[in-house]
Amino acid sequence: MDKYAVIVAGGKGQRMGNAIPKQFLPLAGKPVLYHTIKAFKDAFEDMKLVLVLPQDQLSYAQMVLQAFPERIDIAIVTGGETRFHSVQNGLKAVSGNSVIFVHDGVRPLVSADLVQRCFVQAINKGSAIPAIAVADSMRIIEGDSSRPVDRQNMRSIQTPQTFRSDILLPAFLQGYMEHFTDEATVVEAYGEEVYLIEGERGNIKITTPEDMLIAETILNSRTDNG
Amino acid sequence: MDKYAVIVAGGKGQRMGNAIPKQFLPLAGKPVLYHTIKAFKDAFEDMKLVLVLPQDQLSYAQMVLQAFPERIDIAIVTGGETRFHSVQNGLKAVSGNSVIFVHDGVRPLVSADLVQRCFVQAINKGSAIPAIAVADSMRIIEGDSSRPVDRQNMRSIQTPQTFRSDILLPAFLQGYMEHFTDEATVVEAYGEEVYLIEGERGNIKITTPEDMLIAETILNSRTDNG
Repeated sequence: MDKYAVIVAGGKGQRMGNAIPKQFLPLAGKPVLYHTIKAFKDAFEDMKLVLVLPQDQLSYAQMVLQAFPERIDIAIVTGGETRFHSVQNGLKAVSGNSVIFVHDGVRPLVSADLVQRCFVQAINKGSAIPAIAVADSMRIIEGDSSRPVDRQNMRSIQTPQTFRSDILLPAFLQGYMEHFTDEATVVEAYGEEVYLIEGERGNIKITTPEDMLIAETILNSRTDNG
Repeated sequence: MDKYAVIVAGGKGQRMGNAIPKQFLPLAGKPVLYHTIKAFKDAFEDMKLVLVLPQDQLSYAQMVLQAFPERIDIAIVTGGETRFHSVQNGLKAVSGNSVIFVHDGVRPLVSADLVQRCFVQAINKGSAIPAIAVADSMRIIEGDSSRPVDRQNMRSIQTPQTFRSDILLPAFLQGYMEHFTDEATVVEAYGEEVYLIEGERGNIKITTPEDMLIAETILNSRTDNG
């Protein structure tokens, strides 16, 4: 079964207060996207790679490729208006019977173990959506007011959202809807149930400058421990 | 108006895989609780301090006090069966017209700015519950299945949950109920509305060994920047 990692790198880096989009910022000396791509290669040597970049960031791609010691094969695809459209474009580079991992470019700390577990579950159940328990109390805003929600049943959703191609590809032939915030919601709108899998607290999404520091700390601690 | 920080340090440290409870582990060379206490003293010089510790951790208290270069006044109180009972015990050390900050001992990174903002809002509105936007997609588990929830309106709740004493003290005279997961839910059960305030992403709750590394990184980056 073929394996495709569709790595989606959107955003403009404004929240980082930085001209360079965050997925290209150096993390432990290499661009964030280098680490993200490497994580998928580490999980499966035969992983096929698709990198979806906004039009105005295509010029940065070379920097990521050059960070690898050896030549690496990556299909580079231009993103779209929304996450849905970007993934839709990325999926055009996918063919045959396969398992597809759709992953945030700014989650460089995903482990090989999580990718491998997602693969096994996607083959068996059709999908694997990494989810973790919520550490803090939660409330829902309602107008000027708010109310508590039971966090026992709440889960924080991560990527790679992983699917068998016979489920994901037809789901992405649907027209865009506003509630398509991730791939799970697209697949559900297509009428398929999605299945959660235990994610990883360390699989953080880099959003702020503080997150860069945190990511570097986690990365270094892993290297220290072998 | 008097100011009381009621710092609640429960837990047994099992999740840390460590015999020493996490609130006493060294963070940048000093116990976690040292940093937590210092944050409140830094926010207001006249802050009165109440530390609530489980019975079997009272012997560690001296270690925290000795970390301060000068003698520091802290009322040390024994905790109870649940968070509610611990806070209830802590409030016995509070008197007069005051603003009360109830804070997790394992949130050592709270800033003076957040404490000061909570104070002002609690005086004006009666309460200040720090809340931050949720970065990831969220789902709710329902039996074997799950469904997406709109994260736009979800907030992650932190501490210090801050209240005027005329609201908090009578609320804690109520009998315990199972849904009392924090002070906000206690005050709401008493019939008072609670008011959110913008929290801080860096104000993390230390739960895992990785969180210790993250906390140390954030702490060091603050020192580096003055």
